[in-house]
Amino acid sequence: MQKSRVTLLNDMHFEGELDGFKINLDADTEFGGKNSGPRPKGLLLTSLTGCTAMDVISILRKMRSEPEEFYVEAQAEQTETHPKIFKAITVIYYFKGGNVTEEKAKKAIDLSLENYCGVSAMLSKSTPIDYKIVIDK
Amino acid sequence: MQKSRVTLLNDMHFEGELDGFKINLDADTEFGGKNSGPRPKGLLLTSLTGCTAMDVISILRKMRSEPEEFYVEAQAEQTETHPKIFKAITVIYYFKGGNVTEEKAKKAIDLSLENYCGVSAMLSKSTPIDYKIVIDK
Repeated sequence: MQKSRVTLLNDMHFEGELDGFKINLDADTEFGGKNSGPRPKGLLLTSLTGCTAMDVISILRKMRSEPEEFYVEAQAEQTETHPKIFKAITVIYYFKGGNVTEEKAKKAIDLSLENYCGVSAMLSKSTPIDYKIVIDK
Repeated sequence: MQKSRVTLLNDMHFEGELDGFKINLDADTEFGGKNSGPRPKGLLLTSLTGCTAMDVISILRKMRSEPEEFYVEAQAEQTETHPKIFKAITVIYYFKGGNVTEEKAKKAIDLSLENYCGVSAMLSKSTPIDYKIVIDK
């Protein structure tokens, strides 16, 4: 059983709990937020990037291609009307060093997005997800 | 444009960035994690609870029914096979004080889940979401 709770502190500031860790959340300033934490919807992107990044680094390590630097960034535009959802998500995978080739990166990413990453499996039912690979040589 | 990035620190420990805030993430210990942060998939539940909690408190304030205590918790079981997704999500809305009735709570929650909360709009495409109301008198 997975669970997470958010508790109202004041105004629009909530304290989230997940796996024993605290995550502050706050609304946009236009809705009474005071920037006490990130906005909740963006956590979907943090969840997606974290999930696929962990898959990809595990697979690359099995291929004996550990990058020296690795980050994953997700970018999304929202719809104009309520409920505001992500129209599309682009995920950028950045690798530097460690013998990571375009071919190995693509294999690891496709395994993640198609077979392993539960977050992309869920979000892709509502929002198309595409990706780009950046290899910094 | 919304965006979030996770950057590898070491092992399976990533540092997430969202709206200028840092969120540490780590894998389960069975996948090499060392509990340096929560697991990424659970952030979907933090995102959902934060999103709907902000809607509900805003609506209750407009109804002049501010609870003295308010939290929202989401619980979900995962599938056994990859990709592991949430089979169903139950959201528990807890209110104490402030003249919050079952009827007002239900109205606020239904407005959130049906009209406003983009996170539930997205997740409900892959996973059924139901809810319970707890009013502590």
